[in-house]
Amino acid sequence: MKSRWTTPLTAAFIVSALSSPFSLAAEPDTQEPLVIQEQGSFTVGGTITTEPGEFDPLNPTQPDGQTFRGDHLYTFYQIPDEARQLPIVMWHGFGQFSKTWESTPDGREGFQNIFLRRQYPVYVIDQPRRGNAGRSTVGTEINPTPDEQFWFGQFRVGVWPDYFEGVQFPTDEETLDQYFRSMTPDTGPFDIDIMSDAVSALFDEIGQGILFTHSHSGGMGWSAAIKNDDIEAIVAFEPGSNFVFPEGEVPAPKESSFDTLEGVAIPMEDFEKLTEIPIIIFYGDNIPAEPTDIPTQDAWRVRLEMAREWRDAVNEHGGDVTLVHLPEIGIEGNTHFPFSDLNNVEIADQVSEFLAEKGLD
Amino acid sequence: MKSRWTTPLTAAFIVSALSSPFSLAAEPDTQEPLVIQEQGSFTVGGTITTEPGEFDPLNPTQPDGQTFRGDHLYTFYQIPDEARQLPIVMWHGFGQFSKTWESTPDGREGFQNIFLRRQYPVYVIDQPRRGNAGRSTVGTEINPTPDEQFWFGQFRVGVWPDYFEGVQFPTDEETLDQYFRSMTPDTGPFDIDIMSDAVSALFDEIGQGILFTHSHSGGMGWSAAIKNDDIEAIVAFEPGSNFVFPEGEVPAPKESSFDTLEGVAIPMEDFEKLTEIPIIIFYGDNIPAEPTDIPTQDAWRVRLEMAREWRDAVNEHGGDVTLVHLPEIGIEGNTHFPFSDLNNVEIADQVSEFLAEKGLD
Repeated sequence: MKSRWTTPLTAAFIVSALSSPFSLAAEPDTQEPLVIQEQGSFTVGGTITTEPGEFDPLNPTQPDGQTFRGDHLYTFYQIPDEARQLPIVMWHGFGQFSKTWESTPDGREGFQNIFLRRQYPVYVIDQPRRGNAGRSTVGTEINPTPDEQFWFGQFRVGVWPDYFEGVQFPTDEETLDQYFRSMTPDTGPFDIDIMSDAVSALFDEIGQGILFTHSHSGGMGWSAAIKNDDIEAIVAFEPGSNFVFPEGEVPAPKESSFDTLEGVAIPMEDFEKLTEIPIIIFYGDNIPAEPTDIPTQDAWRVRLEMAREWRDAVNEHGGDVTLVHLPEIGIEGNTHFPFSDLNNVEIADQVSEFLAEKGLD
Repeated sequence: MKSRWTTPLTAAFIVSALSSPFSLAAEPDTQEPLVIQEQGSFTVGGTITTEPGEFDPLNPTQPDGQTFRGDHLYTFYQIPDEARQLPIVMWHGFGQFSKTWESTPDGREGFQNIFLRRQYPVYVIDQPRRGNAGRSTVGTEINPTPDEQFWFGQFRVGVWPDYFEGVQFPTDEETLDQYFRSMTPDTGPFDIDIMSDAVSALFDEIGQGILFTHSHSGGMGWSAAIKNDDIEAIVAFEPGSNFVFPEGEVPAPKESSFDTLEGVAIPMEDFEKLTEIPIIIFYGDNIPAEPTDIPTQDAWRVRLEMAREWRDAVNEHGGDVTLVHLPEIGIEGNTHFPFSDLNNVEIADQVSEFLAEKGLD
């Protein structure tokens, strides 16, 4: 059998060993096998619709009297040997699915494996109407539209066709190919309540745990945590929307050359739930401090600004939100996907440190 | 943390221990951890389209000059410690995805775990335009239509609302809920060449291996094997379409109350490739021998008949096809999904025996 990724895996270990003294102690050699006590998959949440009429086994393709289940999420979970108490649920962003946390585009280990090695049970999910949770109760039209140069920018790999200098992303063609193919379309309309209800239902099933979010799921993660007390902490990578504030305390909308970003008003009693758990937010590099006419850059300027105001709002109400802008602590070159960037072991160390500080390990 | 499946897993081990003397030797206690040398995911195959014009970073959501990658397959793979030489690629059927081979609807171990425990590298896939391989280069409309009572019949769990007597499928509501939610719609038009090209590309990537197919992928599996010599054997569960015969040797169409099943003519030189590898086909129980007006039953009568004629045709040309109709060897009650039925360890033993006989282990 050919070994697909030998070189990148070796390279990843060298990067890991050089870049972070912490990792030498915390990270087993990535060539060590994973010891998995239990693994499997299931769906959770969702609804059932029933067509009026009576099912006729002689005309079984008529919908009459038949049911349709959809809007659940799908999860593949692994529980390592000698597992820690709290599992981690990893929730992808817009246009993405579980792959976000699996192998990186260049074939190194992603956060799924890294946190299994750090002895956390890991649940990677596909949110309702995405990927393997594609069975939606509401229809949609899928219209493939060339968009990859946009995502190259929006995900802050660079401004097409140029990579950012020092970007933590390999510049070979094969990596880019895997990166773009890690997207998949929605199979039904977006609905924040359906998404956050399903994630809440997952925590009902597995009990207390930690939620990792990315981009679009960042804001939905706040909603899920408001709905479910079993979410004990949130690690949010580059949240991009649904910054919720108490009614009457929503900041002014932020204009960018990409869009207008507005805060979302919610009742104070909901907002206060976000003050009860530790939350850490990470943003990567190449986010401009000043307005620019490049929309894929400017989008992140206003999101980082809004995230800072959100941190302050939660903390002023007694919360525990930390915002880490990675370049400010000397970690440079990260894209919109810090957990799969070349230095993702170093990023994982930052997360581990947070979890240890908060007594969640 | 709550343990979701403790009882079913224990029950599965008891079933395994009682039902098959073979399994006691071959099967480690299912409570033993899986030792995984390497795991990850990637996409393979597919195409790239490019929109005419020039990409403008100042108007990045305009498609001009942008690319679109799609029609690849997605695979999640695991290589166990002390792995056997030949990996197994597991290909789902119509409306399904990788979940086919993962946890069973009642939470027992499916063929993914069972064959990892038997030390095979396992690649579960989502075919192009399905599940996590949803990025299709051709658009489609998704129209959710209540259909679960149809599938209950078509998958031979019973004739709704009645389960078949002695069916190897748990009759509780939660299992049925998981079963129906294990479906996901196509995100693009069906195209047998796109599907079989992608699977062939996967074998180009991983080298020689064994292909497991189910239902709709059965016929596509023949096409993939014609395209790629690295497919060393096929284990086909209940193939349902694309029975290929040499030009001039196609049998008469078979009428059923479900549809008319026709053989498909292909050039002799393609057909002969199917005579060069061992193939085993399994069909389950409750397939009527005589015509019936219940379409979900009658569909399988003609498919089993056609499969027998196909076996004979390949073998007459020098091939090595075995067809096992499970009730004929005393294994009763199996549905359209023998690999996830209650007796799936016994079915896995049948597969292991075939692989051993053919020197593929």
